[in-house]
Amino acid sequence: MRTQVTIIGSGPAGLLLGQLLTRAGIDNIILDRVSKDYILGRVRAGVLEWGSVGLLDEAGAGARMHAEGLPHDGYSLAFDGRDHRIDLFALTGKRVMVYGQTEVTRDLMDAREASGAQTIYEAGHVQPHDFDGENPYVTYEKDGVTHRIDCDFIAGCDGFHGVSRKSVPEGAIQNFEKIYPFGWLGVLAEIPPVSHELIYANHPRGFALCSMRSETRSRYYVQCTLDDKVENWSDERFFDELRRRLPAHHAEAMVVGPSFEKSIAPLRSFVAEPMRFGRMFLVGDAAHIVPPTGAKGLNLAASDVHYLFEGLRDYYGDHSSAGIDTYSARALKRVWKSVRFSWSMTTLMHRFPDTGDFGQKIQEAELDYLTHSVAASTAMAENYVGLPL
Amino acid sequence: MRTQVTIIGSGPAGLLLGQLLTRAGIDNIILDRVSKDYILGRVRAGVLEWGSVGLLDEAGAGARMHAEGLPHDGYSLAFDGRDHRIDLFALTGKRVMVYGQTEVTRDLMDAREASGAQTIYEAGHVQPHDFDGENPYVTYEKDGVTHRIDCDFIAGCDGFHGVSRKSVPEGAIQNFEKIYPFGWLGVLAEIPPVSHELIYANHPRGFALCSMRSETRSRYYVQCTLDDKVENWSDERFFDELRRRLPAHHAEAMVVGPSFEKSIAPLRSFVAEPMRFGRMFLVGDAAHIVPPTGAKGLNLAASDVHYLFEGLRDYYGDHSSAGIDTYSARALKRVWKSVRFSWSMTTLMHRFPDTGDFGQKIQEAELDYLTHSVAASTAMAENYVGLPL
Repeated sequence: MRTQVTIIGSGPAGLLLGQLLTRAGIDNIILDRVSKDYILGRVRAGVLEWGSVGLLDEAGAGARMHAEGLPHDGYSLAFDGRDHRIDLFALTGKRVMVYGQTEVTRDLMDAREASGAQTIYEAGHVQPHDFDGENPYVTYEKDGVTHRIDCDFIAGCDGFHGVSRKSVPEGAIQNFEKIYPFGWLGVLAEIPPVSHELIYANHPRGFALCSMRSETRSRYYVQCTLDDKVENWSDERFFDELRRRLPAHHAEAMVVGPSFEKSIAPLRSFVAEPMRFGRMFLVGDAAHIVPPTGAKGLNLAASDVHYLFEGLRDYYGDHSSAGIDTYSARALKRVWKSVRFSWSMTTLMHRFPDTGDFGQKIQEAELDYLTHSVAASTAMAENYVGLPL
Repeated sequence: MRTQVTIIGSGPAGLLLGQLLTRAGIDNIILDRVSKDYILGRVRAGVLEWGSVGLLDEAGAGARMHAEGLPHDGYSLAFDGRDHRIDLFALTGKRVMVYGQTEVTRDLMDAREASGAQTIYEAGHVQPHDFDGENPYVTYEKDGVTHRIDCDFIAGCDGFHGVSRKSVPEGAIQNFEKIYPFGWLGVLAEIPPVSHELIYANHPRGFALCSMRSETRSRYYVQCTLDDKVENWSDERFFDELRRRLPAHHAEAMVVGPSFEKSIAPLRSFVAEPMRFGRMFLVGDAAHIVPPTGAKGLNLAASDVHYLFEGLRDYYGDHSSAGIDTYSARALKRVWKSVRFSWSMTTLMHRFPDTGDFGQKIQEAELDYLTHSVAASTAMAENYVGLPL
């Protein structure tokens, strides 16, 4: 087989890139080691920056999002028993869109199927080859047979644990990492959200987040220790703990109900540099991970896709390699700003076991200052809705 | 002896409070354990917030400051070999005033002498008594005789090492502290400043600051280790090191000359809570210390004085104790915001020995974001010129 761009990974990053390429007349094949249903069963993020909304429109996959997604003009920082609203729209003129990553993925899959572009699911032992030369190719196994796709470029959109980054020689890549000393215990439940906007709560018992996927589906989290286990948390205990961490009027208004998903995720910041290795590019989680505070993961993948698509479009359309040559530097500049914001919002809203009295007072002073300064609120808001591409 | 307010400490905080009280017709005596010349020989800060300028005017001690001080509309953050100007005036509509603390002290001493109010220098063994009751008093020794001043209130303006805070029973006070893992090596020299505005530099070799006292007197600093010694630093070595940490055009333009003061100071954040103990109030450095990055120490003392003066004026003028009852809470609210800012600017501009690769990249992303975002620059600028009283 031969194509122009082989995309490894059929998550939202790979699908968005594929869709943009297909619409620009650039041939591409997507490979994924798992099945379509498996991918659609993963529970992921749910807040899109307005720039990401625009990219989904550009990819021709925005119709259902505009019909069913919930545009949000603000969110609450809750502490000291009170809500402090960050008015995104008043501060920045922009909104965010609450629309689950699973739905984004489904819409992109549907658009891809409609376009006739090829996706190969359940491809075993996917392996990129010779990306440091002029003739890269990717091999995989399917039904006991090894296949080979020759191509011009490889896009590694296969996440943190994927094969793309792991195929880069050790000396060619530098990793930066921070592990946070806590995790998030999250539940999904078919109950109306406690508030029509997100609530990020900083409480002496720890962080809590009231998020949602729709008007009838809530996504709630509480900060937990790294060694905690899901089995320790009945729905009753979870909702009791969540309510304790919220201002009273939210706790009283909360509708509870059985969860249908419950999991604990550790929090990590990770960046690999560079993001280009000859004719292979790393995109999204394959190159960087942010803690979920601030909902930057999917959005950062989308901006990587934007830069890479521009580079490939100019390469094929204008015979210019300027865009792909600067891909890594352009993407990383925005990556580090989002990594900084995610780290900073995580630091602001969580209780750290080793922060000490001074650190705790600094956090409280930061919250007090932030919620009373238009400039500081604007700085937070402009990061939340997404810095310019 | 009897007075209304006994002020311990004849630094700028005690003198400013005394001057405001005297002009409001409230009798006060200032005590200091050292001599006037000793106080005027101390080398201290040099940047006044515009609110502090207003307080000196209100105290009738602003004339020479307006004639000789240098209003500054901005400063430079230097990193990556370039200057990034923070335009204070464009961002906030406010300026700062470069005018040495020694000059502030001298002007306040002159104003006090002109007003006839009493200052007792070289008062030995100053000790506040019975401030938890209705009849506080202060004792001291002079010429071998013990004296006693009965008063309504005691203002502890005697700095971090002073007797006032130390006289508070241990269980009644809570201390918050952070020690930074480096110090500042500073020199004073009779040379024109390298730039007409301050330069805060973050360089792989460490922080540097080019400040000034006047058009002909420069105050320069470099970050050094905590165990470093002044004897290790000839003027030549100091200026070589300073120039290495600055963008090339500054290094080339720098005029060097013999220093007449050279010292190493550790960096510390410290806050004691509360700031009122019955009829004794802590003011300025007696209650809190900030690292010098951002020049908040003197300005924070001035805002404490403002709140305490308002309280005492209302007590004597309107028979209302509301102002003195809320002094500690009002002062601490602003103290913690300044402590936060000083900590944050220190964290942004210094190299930390244990920050690791990730921390270093976050610092670089923060500088990149800050200098390209109007909102973030405004947040920094509004703190630098001083948050509202």
